[in-house]
Amino acid sequence: MDKILRINMGADGGPQAKTESLGDYAGLGGRAMTSGIVSKEVPPLCHPLGEDNKLVIAPGMLSGSVAAMSGRISVGCKSPLTGGIKESNSGGQPSQMLGRLGYAAIVLEGKPKEKALYKIFINKDGVDVKEDNSLCMLGNYEVVDKMKAEYGEKIHCISIGPVGEMKLSAASIAFTDMEQRPTRHAGRGGVGAVMGAKGVKVIVIDDTGCAARAPADPEKFKAANKEFVAGLRKHPVSGEGLPAYGTNVLTNVINEAGAYPTRNFSTGQFEGAGKISGETQAELENARGGEGSATHGCHRGCVIRCSGTFYDKNGNFLTKQVEYETVWAHGGNCGIDDLDAIAQIDRLDDDFGVDTIELGAAIAVAMEGGVAEFGDAEAATNLVKEVGKGTPLGRILGNGAAVTGQVFGVERVPVVKRQAMPAYDPRAVQGQGVTYATTTMGADHTAGYAVATNILGVGGTVDPLKPEGQVELSRNLQIATAAIDSTGMCVFIAFPILDQPETFQALIDVINGFSGQNLTADDVTALGQSVLKNEREFNAQAGLSSKDDRLPDYFKTEELAPHNVTFAVTDEDLDQVFNF
Amino acid sequence: MDKILRINMGADGGPQAKTESLGDYAGLGGRAMTSGIVSKEVPPLCHPLGEDNKLVIAPGMLSGSVAAMSGRISVGCKSPLTGGIKESNSGGQPSQMLGRLGYAAIVLEGKPKEKALYKIFINKDGVDVKEDNSLCMLGNYEVVDKMKAEYGEKIHCISIGPVGEMKLSAASIAFTDMEQRPTRHAGRGGVGAVMGAKGVKVIVIDDTGCAARAPADPEKFKAANKEFVAGLRKHPVSGEGLPAYGTNVLTNVINEAGAYPTRNFSTGQFEGAGKISGETQAELENARGGEGSATHGCHRGCVIRCSGTFYDKNGNFLTKQVEYETVWAHGGNCGIDDLDAIAQIDRLDDDFGVDTIELGAAIAVAMEGGVAEFGDAEAATNLVKEVGKGTPLGRILGNGAAVTGQVFGVERVPVVKRQAMPAYDPRAVQGQGVTYATTTMGADHTAGYAVATNILGVGGTVDPLKPEGQVELSRNLQIATAAIDSTGMCVFIAFPILDQPETFQALIDVINGFSGQNLTADDVTALGQSVLKNEREFNAQAGLSSKDDRLPDYFKTEELAPHNVTFAVTDEDLDQVFNF
Repeated sequence: MDKILRINMGADGGPQAKTESLGDYAGLGGRAMTSGIVSKEVPPLCHPLGEDNKLVIAPGMLSGSVAAMSGRISVGCKSPLTGGIKESNSGGQPSQMLGRLGYAAIVLEGKPKEKALYKIFINKDGVDVKEDNSLCMLGNYEVVDKMKAEYGEKIHCISIGPVGEMKLSAASIAFTDMEQRPTRHAGRGGVGAVMGAKGVKVIVIDDTGCAARAPADPEKFKAANKEFVAGLRKHPVSGEGLPAYGTNVLTNVINEAGAYPTRNFSTGQFEGAGKISGETQAELENARGGEGSATHGCHRGCVIRCSGTFYDKNGNFLTKQVEYETVWAHGGNCGIDDLDAIAQIDRLDDDFGVDTIELGAAIAVAMEGGVAEFGDAEAATNLVKEVGKGTPLGRILGNGAAVTGQVFGVERVPVVKRQAMPAYDPRAVQGQGVTYATTTMGADHTAGYAVATNILGVGGTVDPLKPEGQVELSRNLQIATAAIDSTGMCVFIAFPILDQPETFQALIDVINGFSGQNLTADDVTALGQSVLKNEREFNAQAGLSSKDDRLPDYFKTEELAPHNVTFAVTDEDLDQVFNF
Repeated sequence: MDKILRINMGADGGPQAKTESLGDYAGLGGRAMTSGIVSKEVPPLCHPLGEDNKLVIAPGMLSGSVAAMSGRISVGCKSPLTGGIKESNSGGQPSQMLGRLGYAAIVLEGKPKEKALYKIFINKDGVDVKEDNSLCMLGNYEVVDKMKAEYGEKIHCISIGPVGEMKLSAASIAFTDMEQRPTRHAGRGGVGAVMGAKGVKVIVIDDTGCAARAPADPEKFKAANKEFVAGLRKHPVSGEGLPAYGTNVLTNVINEAGAYPTRNFSTGQFEGAGKISGETQAELENARGGEGSATHGCHRGCVIRCSGTFYDKNGNFLTKQVEYETVWAHGGNCGIDDLDAIAQIDRLDDDFGVDTIELGAAIAVAMEGGVAEFGDAEAATNLVKEVGKGTPLGRILGNGAAVTGQVFGVERVPVVKRQAMPAYDPRAVQGQGVTYATTTMGADHTAGYAVATNILGVGGTVDPLKPEGQVELSRNLQIATAAIDSTGMCVFIAFPILDQPETFQALIDVINGFSGQNLTADDVTALGQSVLKNEREFNAQAGLSSKDDRLPDYFKTEELAPHNVTFAVTDEDLDQVFNF
C-alpha cells in the first residue's frame, strides 16, 4: 500500500489514470485517508455532483494483511445528502484485494466531458479504464455477472446500480462479498451518486499474483493477532450474539428496551418485532434448508462472522442474511412484520444500489404523508421498485427522508444534517441521540455506537433514558470509532476492546507488529481526534454550524412510549462533544 | 392600526382569535413588523410547517391612509424553502383594508389538532373563524368567487390554492387586486405552505364602514403627498416606462444588457425576447380589444399603475398583465417565446397558488435534467398542471428549484439559500449578484435592486460587469429597501427617490405628516438597518452562516455570453455587506 491511484474522469481525450506516491498521506488508511484527502483537496462549497468533488476509496491501514477483521473499506467525498464530509464504510472483498495490490486509495476526480459510463479494471499489471455504455442502468447483480464473464471468476467488484447512475442522494456503492455477490454496501450519504457523477459504473479488481501484505515484525504481529482473536471470541457480543443471529439479534434487544423506532419514530416498541427478529430469522433459514444462521464473514479474515444467507420459500438464494438496520428500516419503521417481504426489498435495494436505512426512513415518512399505509408490505415493495425505475415518486424516495418529507409536506422527519436516523430512537438511547446530533456524518449509528453502553452494558453503564454522562460517552466512542475506521477493522471489535483491556492492547500490538511502530493508546486517541477535527473543519467551511448539531425539535417535545421520555441533552452540552 | 389580531389555530376546542394592543411592536409596519414578530417569537430551529412557526401578515406603516403607493403588504414567517426568515411582499387590496380596520398585523399561530380547513372573516364588527372543508383543494379563483357569494361583493381575500394546502415550498399567498381577482401574490419562500400548515384557506376582509386612517398633521401630509406624487410622475421609470408597458418593459432592456438568464442561466441573451417583451405584450393587448397596456394599479392609491390585463385570443380575460419576472421565468428561462402560453401558465400559477419565479426556475432545472425540452411550451404547461394536481412530479416542481435539482441529479441549480434566482444573471449584473448572495431572504431581486444602478442608470452608475462598487451599492439598497418595505410603499418608489432628493424628502415628509414624528433620512436608514439586523440574527440562530451568503460555484467559473463574464465579487467582499 505504497501508492494512490488517481483517475481523472474529466481529462481531455477521456479518463486518465496515474499512480503516485503517498506523499502527505503516508501511513493513513480507511477513514483517516478518505477524510484526509477530501478535507485537503475538495472545495467545501463545491457541488457534490460537480467536477470538483472527489470520490476516495481507501482500504484500512491493516487491509491486505492477515490481521483478523481488517477487511473493511472506507468511501469518502462531499456528501450529496448532507452537504458535509462523508465516510461510508463497507465490508466485502475489495478492501483486502486493494491492499494486496498496494493501493492505499483510489481517487476518482473530475467528471466526463460527455455523458458516458466507464468500467475500471485493476490487477497486478495496472489499470484499464474503458467506456462501456452497455452497462447503463443495470442492477448490481447483473453488472457483477457480466464482469465475471468478461474478466474471469476471481474478480471482485465495486459498483453502482441505477440509483447511483441517476445520482439520487441515497445511492450506495456495492462491494462484492466472499461469494462475489454485491451485498455489502457503502450505504450512507449518497456516495453512489458521486460515483455516478464521475461516470464510473464498476471497478473490477483481480489480485491474482499478489501476496498478503507482510508485517514489519512477523512474530509480534502473529502473537498479537492470536491474542486479539481470542479476545473477540470470548466476548459475549462478538463471540456469541453476533455469530449466532447476526446483527438482527438486536431486534428483540432494542424492542425490549423500548428504543425500537416504530412507524416513523412514533413509538418505541413494535408489536410485530418477534416476527422479524434474528431468532425468527435463524429458524426460518434453518427450516429452508440453508446452512443456518450466521456462518459467514462479510470479508476474508473475519472471525466474528455475523453474516449469513437468506433463502426464499423455495430454498433458493434471495439475498444475504438481512441486517438489523435493514430489517428495522423496511420492517418496524414501516410497521411491516413480514420477513420475506423485507428480504425481497433488501435484494432490490442491493440490486438498485440504494441505502436501506435512508430508503426505509423515506418510505416511512411517505407513509406518514399518506402515500401508503403503514404495514402494507406490498405497497412498500412497489415503492422500492419505483426507485429502481426512476419514476418521479421513486426519485423522491431515492433522495432520502428529508426530500421526501419536504415533497409530501411531512413535519416529522427523523433526520440530522438531512441524513435519516438509524434503528435506535434517540429519546430512549440518549447517548445515541448525542451521536446522531453531533457526528460529522449526519445521523449515523456507527459513528459512536452508544447503544453499547446505554443498552448492551458494554464499556460500563450509562442510563439510556437520562442525559447524564451521554456527551462524554458519545465523545469517547466517536474518537475511538474514527480510529477503528482508519485501521480497516470492523467496528464490532469495539465490543471486546471496550470491555477487555488486554484485547485493546492486543489490537495496538497488531498495529505495531504490522507497521513496526510503537503506538500507545494515546496515539490511537490522537489519531481519532485528528480525523474528527479534519472532518469538523471541512463541515464548518461547507457551512454547517452548531445549529446543525441538533435533533429535530419533536424529539425534545414528543414523548416516546413506553418510557414516555423526550431527548433531554441540552444544546449547550451537545456543543461540548468536540471540546477536546 | 392600534391592534394585532392573533389567531391560535391549535387552541383546544378549535381556533381562538383575540386582539391585543401593539405593545413592543408599536410603530412598526410591513416588513419591520413581520420580521420583528418572527425574530422575537418564532424559535429559529423550529420546523417551518410546525406549530411553533407563525405566519404574520402586516400592512405597512402608511397602509390604510391616502398616501400614494402605500398599499403593499408583508407576509413573514420562517420559510419552508430557505429555512431562514422570510418577508414576502404583495400588492392587492387587503393591505389598505386591514389598515382601515385598524389591524397592524394578523398572526396565525399553532396548528389545528385535526386536519381541517378554515376561513376567517374580518370586518368592523370583529373576527369569525369557521371550519369549511368544502374549500378543500379549490383554486384561488373559485375560492374568491365562493367568498363573494357568501360574504358579499365588497370583500377582498387573502387565500391559498392547492399548492399551499399541499404545503409545497413554492406555495404563494394570493391577495385580490382592485378587480377582486387573486392575481397579486406574496410569492416567495413558501409562505403559502405555512398558511396551509395553519389550516387557513382564506381570510375574507370587508372594510365597509371604516374610513381612511387620518394623518396627525393633515396639511403637512397632504402637501408632502402631492410633492411625492409629482416626483413619481416626473421620473422616467415610474412616470413613463412602468406605466407604459408594465414591469415587462424590462425584457428588452435586460436582454440587450446581456443579463437575461436564458435556458436555466446558460446564456445571457434570448433570441425570442422580442416576442415576449412588454412592447409586444402591449400591442397584443391593444389588438385584442382590451383597454391597452398598463392602466391599472395593483392596489388603491397607486399612481404608477404598472399593472394591466391579459386577454386571450377571443378577447376574454385570462390573467393580469403578466409581470416581467413571470414572463422570464416561464419564458426565456425555459426557452419559451409564446406569450399566450406564458399567460396561460400565469393564470394557472395564480389559481394553484405558486410562486411563478420559483416554479419557472424549477421547470428550467427539470428541463436541464431531461424532463422536457427547452422551448416546449406545451410540456411546460403540462408540468404546471402536474403541480396543481399534486402528482409526485408536480410536488417535486412545487417544492422549487433546489429540490428539483436534487431529485433529477442536476448540478446547475441557480439558487441561494435554496431559493431560486430571479430574472437577472448575477454575472452580468454583479450588484444583483451581491444582493442574491447576501440578502437574508435567499436569492431575491427586490431585496436590493442593483439593476437600477447597474443597468438603468438610476441612483448613479456602477459598471454591471465588474465587481467594483457592488458591495456598497447592494448594502445601501438593501437597507433602503428594508425601510421601504416597512412603510407599505411599493418598492418602485425607489427609482425616483434614488434620483430625486426632493422626492426622497417628500416621502419622509409624508411619513412625518402622517405619524406626527420628525424622522430624518438617518432615521430611515436606521430603521432599515435594524430590520436587517433582526433578520440576520434570526438566520444565524437558524443555522445559516456566511457560507450560505454565496452564489453556486458555477457562476464563478462558467462564463456568461455575450459578455463572457463570471461573477467576480470575492467572498471576503460579500462578507462586508452587513458591516454597518
